[in-house]
Amino acid sequence: MPQAPRCFTPDNRILLGPGPSNCPPSVLQAMSSPMIGHLDPQFLKLMEEIQQLLRYLFQTRNLMTIPISGTGSAGMETCLVNLLEPGDTAVICRNGVFGNRMADVAERCGANVVTIDAPWGQIIEPIAINKKLASLHKVKLVGIVQAETSTGIHQPLQEIVKIVHEHDSMILVDAVTSLGGVDVKMDKWEIDAIYSGTQKCLSCPPGLAPISLNERAMDVVRNRKTKVQSWYLDLSMIGKYWGSERVYHHTAPISMIYALHEALRLIMEEGIDARVERHRQNALLLKERLHELGISFAAQEGFHLPTLNAIAIPEDVDDAAVRKTLLDEYGIEIGAGLGEFKGKVWRIGLMGFSSQKRNVFLLTEALKAILHL
Amino acid sequence: MPQAPRCFTPDNRILLGPGPSNCPPSVLQAMSSPMIGHLDPQFLKLMEEIQQLLRYLFQTRNLMTIPISGTGSAGMETCLVNLLEPGDTAVICRNGVFGNRMADVAERCGANVVTIDAPWGQIIEPIAINKKLASLHKVKLVGIVQAETSTGIHQPLQEIVKIVHEHDSMILVDAVTSLGGVDVKMDKWEIDAIYSGTQKCLSCPPGLAPISLNERAMDVVRNRKTKVQSWYLDLSMIGKYWGSERVYHHTAPISMIYALHEALRLIMEEGIDARVERHRQNALLLKERLHELGISFAAQEGFHLPTLNAIAIPEDVDDAAVRKTLLDEYGIEIGAGLGEFKGKVWRIGLMGFSSQKRNVFLLTEALKAILHL
Repeated sequence: MPQAPRCFTPDNRILLGPGPSNCPPSVLQAMSSPMIGHLDPQFLKLMEEIQQLLRYLFQTRNLMTIPISGTGSAGMETCLVNLLEPGDTAVICRNGVFGNRMADVAERCGANVVTIDAPWGQIIEPIAINKKLASLHKVKLVGIVQAETSTGIHQPLQEIVKIVHEHDSMILVDAVTSLGGVDVKMDKWEIDAIYSGTQKCLSCPPGLAPISLNERAMDVVRNRKTKVQSWYLDLSMIGKYWGSERVYHHTAPISMIYALHEALRLIMEEGIDARVERHRQNALLLKERLHELGISFAAQEGFHLPTLNAIAIPEDVDDAAVRKTLLDEYGIEIGAGLGEFKGKVWRIGLMGFSSQKRNVFLLTEALKAILHL
Repeated sequence: MPQAPRCFTPDNRILLGPGPSNCPPSVLQAMSSPMIGHLDPQFLKLMEEIQQLLRYLFQTRNLMTIPISGTGSAGMETCLVNLLEPGDTAVICRNGVFGNRMADVAERCGANVVTIDAPWGQIIEPIAINKKLASLHKVKLVGIVQAETSTGIHQPLQEIVKIVHEHDSMILVDAVTSLGGVDVKMDKWEIDAIYSGTQKCLSCPPGLAPISLNERAMDVVRNRKTKVQSWYLDLSMIGKYWGSERVYHHTAPISMIYALHEALRLIMEEGIDARVERHRQNALLLKERLHELGISFAAQEGFHLPTLNAIAIPEDVDDAAVRKTLLDEYGIEIGAGLGEFKGKVWRIGLMGFSSQKRNVFLLTEALKAILHL
């Protein structure tokens, strides 16, 4: 018989990359609570609380506000496969990895995908959307990323939502790296559909994707002509489990739901506005310190994400070697550049529980030492 | 500001339903280990060990042996969306909820689905498959459930695999309620593709779906003419993250992977044959005790699943009231009947860590007291 490997004991990392972020102790503790059934009355009550907490977080009253049983990308796919049918036209804004991903997923839905492209590190201009929508007939939805994790761009949304609605289309927002770290006001801004992930600014382990759809979006889901191509992500069936009917669909990821409940509880205790302000302050502190070291940001001035700071790798610096030293000698993880930004950019996440003054101090001092600045 | 709810503390349940089962203490402990990144060298090493452990569990040498980031149903969908293309013919065997589900998912892939139906609680006869395959032209795959959780049927597979291969088709096996509890010999039996879930006989929290595909199945995946309709479940992309390239696809559910590692480690320590024997012994004990109480089984004689025992609810007994008393007074969960078996059957799971003599004693004594037997 083969020999079983040893128990796994992860090192104590300070996670300042693009996610996952560090989890608060009570969230980790919740993960190890004993198992209960997915139809246990206790668990059904927990689901109700989760929905209320998610509505607080998204700042919405939408009934369809639930966590999908997969990571952020499963949340993206859930929104697209439920809202799009073959032959629909979707406009997708692309200025980084996650806009590209949205276009790829929408194409797999059989949609006619039209893209609006901006250079990496730049925002999507409202005027570009207005122009594109004016040139097209019957656009079902416009997809846009609020916080582009690959470039550190914080995309303004309010003007764009207005334009999309003037053209009688729906807006779908990627809030994976924004929710819980910067303002996301679903109802006030009139966002139709939104998705996020748990492992960024919620500081919950990866594995769930909170989503919310308003009544306009749900009408589209309810009036589909074709079945949703994904059984696992079919909202009409998932909705019956999360709704009052409690019809079994798939076994909910119980422990992840425990952790999400605790993470959302902590957010409500802190208060969403105070939390956003904390993220803003710590990002400002990082910016000041990096400025003193002569390190500049990669994203367009005025639109920097406080949760994900994309900075230009100084010249003549070995990208991988510096990241390895940070990890090996200081236990700090930061992110490499992706796609067009590969080798050019480091991505420093200050998300959720990782957004702490002490982490900013430690990281900038470590960089100073490694780079001999 | 709204008031945050209190921390959630689940009751101490004895889980003898259709899953989730109880988790061993060290698996729960693993869930609360600190977070690390999904590209951390430590995590990549953990992924390699997970694959080796899964190969031991499936008794296979298949390279493509990984956990999918979703529950068992996501594993089902992964196999079907990757193996089927629009217009392909798929034969799906239906004798319970999960065969029905497989047919539904296959239809959503645009396949031409032909079903072989047997009454609930009966096995699928090899001769029925032979007859159906002889009548059809070019069947790409045959889907069958090894352990039908809704009926307690243990489907023999070896003869059926031979027939399917004689007709030059592939076999896809649902091993959600069998893997780790009854024999599943992927390579010896020449199964082409298989999927399972973590929350049954592996006694790991729900949220991951171990799958394995042999080279024949992977050739089909590699030679597809169309893109896989699901981005999230696209094996060609997921394979690049789990393979030597380590290309980022989606953020792995880190804590769930910790737990799966520990659960698989415990299985290797126990030994798969000893584990199967334990499940068999405890199911026999349950059968003896229920026989003494005059309670009979719902599934076809000779094909009872040791992991999921579907028993006939005695006449004049209030189904829901008995289950409620078991839960409220004894902290024991058993499963209600689904579909055609609703109100007629109770489902008693003896899976993984829940498959213990003391649980059998307790449950049968509690039933005796509640039913005044």
